[in-house]
Amino acid sequence: MTTIFDAPEEFATTALKGFAAIYSRYVRLVKGGVVRATKVPKGKVSVVIGGGSGHYPAFAGYVGPGLADAAVAGDVFASPSTAAVARVCRLADQGGGILLGFGNYAGDVLNFGVAAERLRAEGIDVRIVPVTDDVASAPAETAAKRRGIAGDLMVFKIAGAAAEAGLDLDEVERLTRHANDRTVSFGVAFKGCTLPGAPNPLFTVPKGQMALGLGIHGEPGISEEDIVSATDLAALLTDKLLAERPAGTKRAGVVLNGLGATKYEELFVLWTAVAARLEAAGLEAVLPEAGEFVTSLDMQGCSLTLLWLDDELEPLWTAACDTPVLRRGATFTTEPATDALDDSDTLANFAEASDISKADGKCVAGVIEKIALALKEAEEELGRIDAVAGDGDHGQGMRRGSAAALEAARAAVAAGAGAASVLAVAGDAWADRAGGTSGAIWGLLLRSWSNALSDTAAIEKDAVVRGARLALEGVTRLGRARPGDKTLVDALVPFVETLEKEAAAGKSLVEAWSAAAEAAKAAAEATASLTPKLGRARPLSEKSIGHPDAGAISLALVSQVAGNFLAANKGDY
Amino acid sequence: MTTIFDAPEEFATTALKGFAAIYSRYVRLVKGGVVRATKVPKGKVSVVIGGGSGHYPAFAGYVGPGLADAAVAGDVFASPSTAAVARVCRLADQGGGILLGFGNYAGDVLNFGVAAERLRAEGIDVRIVPVTDDVASAPAETAAKRRGIAGDLMVFKIAGAAAEAGLDLDEVERLTRHANDRTVSFGVAFKGCTLPGAPNPLFTVPKGQMALGLGIHGEPGISEEDIVSATDLAALLTDKLLAERPAGTKRAGVVLNGLGATKYEELFVLWTAVAARLEAAGLEAVLPEAGEFVTSLDMQGCSLTLLWLDDELEPLWTAACDTPVLRRGATFTTEPATDALDDSDTLANFAEASDISKADGKCVAGVIEKIALALKEAEEELGRIDAVAGDGDHGQGMRRGSAAALEAARAAVAAGAGAASVLAVAGDAWADRAGGTSGAIWGLLLRSWSNALSDTAAIEKDAVVRGARLALEGVTRLGRARPGDKTLVDALVPFVETLEKEAAAGKSLVEAWSAAAEAAKAAAEATASLTPKLGRARPLSEKSIGHPDAGAISLALVSQVAGNFLAANKGDY
Repeated sequence: MTTIFDAPEEFATTALKGFAAIYSRYVRLVKGGVVRATKVPKGKVSVVIGGGSGHYPAFAGYVGPGLADAAVAGDVFASPSTAAVARVCRLADQGGGILLGFGNYAGDVLNFGVAAERLRAEGIDVRIVPVTDDVASAPAETAAKRRGIAGDLMVFKIAGAAAEAGLDLDEVERLTRHANDRTVSFGVAFKGCTLPGAPNPLFTVPKGQMALGLGIHGEPGISEEDIVSATDLAALLTDKLLAERPAGTKRAGVVLNGLGATKYEELFVLWTAVAARLEAAGLEAVLPEAGEFVTSLDMQGCSLTLLWLDDELEPLWTAACDTPVLRRGATFTTEPATDALDDSDTLANFAEASDISKADGKCVAGVIEKIALALKEAEEELGRIDAVAGDGDHGQGMRRGSAAALEAARAAVAAGAGAASVLAVAGDAWADRAGGTSGAIWGLLLRSWSNALSDTAAIEKDAVVRGARLALEGVTRLGRARPGDKTLVDALVPFVETLEKEAAAGKSLVEAWSAAAEAAKAAAEATASLTPKLGRARPLSEKSIGHPDAGAISLALVSQVAGNFLAANKGDY
Repeated sequence: MTTIFDAPEEFATTALKGFAAIYSRYVRLVKGGVVRATKVPKGKVSVVIGGGSGHYPAFAGYVGPGLADAAVAGDVFASPSTAAVARVCRLADQGGGILLGFGNYAGDVLNFGVAAERLRAEGIDVRIVPVTDDVASAPAETAAKRRGIAGDLMVFKIAGAAAEAGLDLDEVERLTRHANDRTVSFGVAFKGCTLPGAPNPLFTVPKGQMALGLGIHGEPGISEEDIVSATDLAALLTDKLLAERPAGTKRAGVVLNGLGATKYEELFVLWTAVAARLEAAGLEAVLPEAGEFVTSLDMQGCSLTLLWLDDELEPLWTAACDTPVLRRGATFTTEPATDALDDSDTLANFAEASDISKADGKCVAGVIEKIALALKEAEEELGRIDAVAGDGDHGQGMRRGSAAALEAARAAVAAGAGAASVLAVAGDAWADRAGGTSGAIWGLLLRSWSNALSDTAAIEKDAVVRGARLALEGVTRLGRARPGDKTLVDALVPFVETLEKEAAAGKSLVEAWSAAAEAAKAAAEATASLTPKLGRARPLSEKSIGHPDAGAISLALVSQVAGNFLAANKGDY
């Protein structure tokens, strides 16, 4: 949905005006287009590009030293007029002639072609190069009929670099045509785009499907298929282009282009699979780019473009340029870092532990085993509770975290660690693997608790109770939740208070813990009446009223499981 | 809709891997984040930033000389773990201490805070600065409770520039806090975002509404209102921020940030109104940027951020940096162009015309007047016909073009132009104002036709018939349509052929023209049975079968109107 505009019919002209205003360091606005805001040497070939609007950064975003001298902009998805093309060319002309580049569409061919004729009649030497990179639009034998899509960037980059290098118009034209002959693109669309002011999309793609080779104005593609995984999509795009690889080509400029609503991170995910495929084909990607280079308003989809490099094209592809969208060349003098980076998490060296503490450490690992088992079983239910108020990943995080904690605890036991160390590394592992807020909270809770234990003395009731208080303090010191915020704290506070009170009253640890777990359970259920406070990923807070907090429920569950373990092994405490 | 992924739970890690692979010239991948790929001076303060994934270019895209040294990345919309933060910090440490920057969210405060404590225990000096720019999330009096959104970019840019300048950790921390105190943002959302693998959006905004101050993970905002015009939206965003302007501030760094599915051209449209408002408030925008800097997957919406500059902050804001997303500093030695650009379309100097041709020129303007009137009346109907196969703008283009042609013809008549010149400038004006393919075609048609007329001799039947043939040749030479392609050519060919045949058979111009117009009409209606060929903005070609082509219908209409004019003025020919 194109949403931000005043008068829809003024969308393209206002967008161009705003672009020229914000990037006045790059361009000057003229009627129907922009020209460079910086001085251009007399006699240099001018590279003038253009086409319809709605494709930013194509084409105004390519204007600057090392790339285009000027860009002409038509209305949304409509060719600029002949007069506009001619006007912008006259303003860009430095006496060296003009290379006029545009995508190969009927309207553009017409308007740029007629403009070129008018300019030639006025004595300006003009050469036209329609870009024809879209392999979906015609077979290789009739490549001149192909449409121009994201290959525009590569072809214009070559033209701009050749012109900036001071080559004459014949040579700039030859190299631009050569680049166009060696540029291929293939794309898919997942969802159509909406013109400014239009109530409905210009075209649609059936839900769950992708349109292969659909044009950037919705022109018909090759077929519609079910959406596939990133790996399969990469294979589809890459193989289609590799089929046209010129013999002996070992290096390629690469652009993975987003059409508007497909985001960078999706392109990066796709890149991992594309890169693997290019590498397997023995093709090296030279200065690859992933991002939005030729868009189609808010269309969803992407395309892959390859520029088959040779000795002539590679230096032009890598040459410096400075435009709003693409910048190359050194601004800093840097050297690649070559030192080895060790990001492995090495097992801690544990303090010397007593035999009794080693035995207690095994018990700690035993409690954690029961907890991990219970959280695995409860994963779905916890996710369901969390989905009411959050993003539903709580069960997953608790399962992951407790499993990692168990693994770390077992490794620590095997390494001869004492009880305090086993609990501490279990907490760290939980935080690291679970991620998110609840992972950090559980890590903090276990590590803080461990501070009341030792690696030499046996675990005793007082130490456990003191640890519970330390855990609560740790969680509330760095976490922000306070009682009543509808978090784990709402169950943890009554747990700790009950444990302290019952222990002080002379109850055994098993009895005191059991009472504390009951208190935690009741408090967790009572969170159903609370409203959550502001927190991350909690967009639907009002919906959660009447439902308990997943974090509090987890705390209650864990304390109950731990209590059961204590009771079953009560002879030991 | 987030669409491209393999395993949804691996989305964030795979995206980071792909990012690091494509931008290996900037970053090296480590477990849980990236560090600079270039050598960093020993003893420099390291700026380490981070947060959840799904916000690219935040945060990995900010890594490079002059900005961040490293970035930590959590899962989608989830804080990175304490261990990940600590690990990446250790790898980025150059012995000068670490400035740790992140948005002010519970999970991040917790994980970055605990990591800072762990690192300090290891002897690394770490300072934490949570960014708090979102004015919608708390009032100014409790600004420390505010969330961090696109202001991240400004605050981290200041930190990075200060560290690159060689300042010590105390000073880098002071300047970063100072920048955060002077950074404010306000945003709106039009549509929620969808997590990878999720069947439904994480949250929604009611259709036709905008959510003011909605957080980048869907956290509650201020209110929901009807979507307003770009000008009103600019007022809303700007005024909210100007209310917090520190006394005496005359200059500001500005970022207009797109959240994902709101496109650059919409941001540029918005910028025209934002810039006007800032200027009216006496605030100069220094190196403003419009684009995607802190996104939220495919969320639709935008935010405005202002950094209130002072003598300390401005040089840091404008300092050179080189990262995948933001590059500042010279790559080329350039000078601003200062020559005046004249982009006015001056009236042509017409050749000396005879009195008889001047009178004929008035008749040409008279025909065009009738045509413009008829096309104005037919605008809606032509638009309706065009909407079946195209984007429905044909009627609008024909109305605009013919009105411009009439204006130019009248101006030419007033300037004493002869018949050929009047028709030629009318054609040019039509092409220039109508835009698109049909504008160019009509411009070409009229200008080509004018080549058979003169500015001295009277208009005669033979010249008119010859002109018709030239018009057809002009249209088919540069236009690509051939008979049967379902375009204006399908009506133009029988028109020209009938006109030639009837004229050769001795019929008067009026009679021949009338027969030709009938032939054009029949042919235009017969286009209903044709399928259009590939062309621009024709996504729904198959739907057009059974409907005539709008361009052919226009041609028939214009020839009929012109014929009626001729018949009414037949005494003159």
